[in-house]
Amino acid sequence: MKHFTLEDITAQKTRYKAHLINAITGYKSANLIATKSKEGITNLAVFNSIIHLGSNPPLLGFILRPTTVPRHTFENLKSTDVFTVNAITQDRIAEAHHTSAKYPEGISEFDVTAFDAEYKADFYAPFVVGAPIQIGCRYKNHYRIEENNTLLIVGEMEHLFVEEKMISEDGWVQLDKGNIVTINGLEGYALPKLLDRFSYARPKK
Amino acid sequence: MKHFTLEDITAQKTRYKAHLINAITGYKSANLIATKSKEGITNLAVFNSIIHLGSNPPLLGFILRPTTVPRHTFENLKSTDVFTVNAITQDRIAEAHHTSAKYPEGISEFDVTAFDAEYKADFYAPFVVGAPIQIGCRYKNHYRIEENNTLLIVGEMEHLFVEEKMISEDGWVQLDKGNIVTINGLEGYALPKLLDRFSYARPKK
Repeated sequence: MKHFTLEDITAQKTRYKAHLINAITGYKSANLIATKSKEGITNLAVFNSIIHLGSNPPLLGFILRPTTVPRHTFENLKSTDVFTVNAITQDRIAEAHHTSAKYPEGISEFDVTAFDAEYKADFYAPFVVGAPIQIGCRYKNHYRIEENNTLLIVGEMEHLFVEEKMISEDGWVQLDKGNIVTINGLEGYALPKLLDRFSYARPKK
Repeated sequence: MKHFTLEDITAQKTRYKAHLINAITGYKSANLIATKSKEGITNLAVFNSIIHLGSNPPLLGFILRPTTVPRHTFENLKSTDVFTVNAITQDRIAEAHHTSAKYPEGISEFDVTAFDAEYKADFYAPFVVGAPIQIGCRYKNHYRIEENNTLLIVGEMEHLFVEEKMISEDGWVQLDKGNIVTINGLEGYALPKLLDRFSYARPKK
C-alpha cells in the first residue's frame, strides 16, 4: 500500500491533494441544490456534501466553502430561508456536473443546462423536474468549522417528494430503483447496485 | 410521486421515519472506525456518516448521536485523541454491519467479527487488516448541532494508506477498483461502478 504521512499530503500540489483527499473518505451523495433569490433569479448547483443529520426532526446538512463557487446558493438560502435538494440520476450526470461551472450572478444554471424548474406545494424555491427525490428544506442554522473556515448548513425538510416505486413498506427508499448516482471524489460519478439489506444488528449468541 | 409534508413525516412511526429520512439524502460512505481505549480495549464500529471536510489541511468529519450505539468510539477518541477510518469492501458487508450490534463495553468487535487489527506507523489506534483505504486520524474538535443534539466530530488525517492500483496519476482514488461499497439508508449496502469522470467545469461559450 502507498503510505502518505500528513507531511507527504501537505507537500503535494493543490490539485493532487484535492483529488486524493476528496476521494478517500468514500462515496458521496449526488444532489442538485436549487434556490431562488429575492429578485427571482434561480440558481442550481451540484453538491456532493449533503448528509443525513437526523430523522426526528428530519434534518440534513451540507458543507459550504464560503469563498468558492456555490456562494449564490448560500446568499439565496440565507435571504429566502429555503432551498431544494434534488437527486441526480445516471442519464444526467454530465449536465449535473456542468452546474459547477462559474457563471455570472445574473445567469441561472436552469437556462444553460437541460434542467427545468418546477414549483409546487407553495414552496418559493424551485424543484428540479424529473428528479426521483425532491426535498424542500428550510434553512435552520449554520456552524462555522474553525479548522478550515467551512460552514455546515443545517436544513429541516418541509416537503418530500419520492417516486412511489422506490419506497418500501417500512419506509426505506431503495436508491438504485431510481438510478440515482453517487460521487467519487470531485468529478467521478458512479452507479450503485444494491448488494444486500440487513436488519438491525444484535450480538451473536 | 408520493408527497410527504413535515407533518406527514413527523406522524410516521419512529422506524418508518428513520428508514425514510436516512435514505433520501442519497448514498453514504461506508467505513469502519477503530479506536483503542486507554486500558487497551479496542472498538470497531460501522459508520455511514463520514464526510470530507477539506483537503488543506486534510480533514474529515462524522456525526455522532451521543446517546446511541457508537459511544465507545467517542469515549476512546476523546481520551486517546486518535481513531482510524477503514473502507468497507463488498466481501465484508455482513461482518461490517454486525459491528453495529450492542456488545458490552469489555468486548471488542475485533473478537466477535472476522476483522483483524493491525498496528503500524506508531499509531495508537488499530487499522483494519485488508481495508484498501486506511486513514489514521487525530481528533481536533467537535461541534454540537443544537437542532437535534448530535455531534460533528472533526479529525485531521495523519496517516493514509491506499492500495496503489486505486491511485491515479493526478491523485484521484478510484473507489470501485477496490470494491468499496456505499450505504443506502441504515442497512442497505450497494456496490458502485464508475460511469464517467469529468474535468473541472467551465461555462459554455
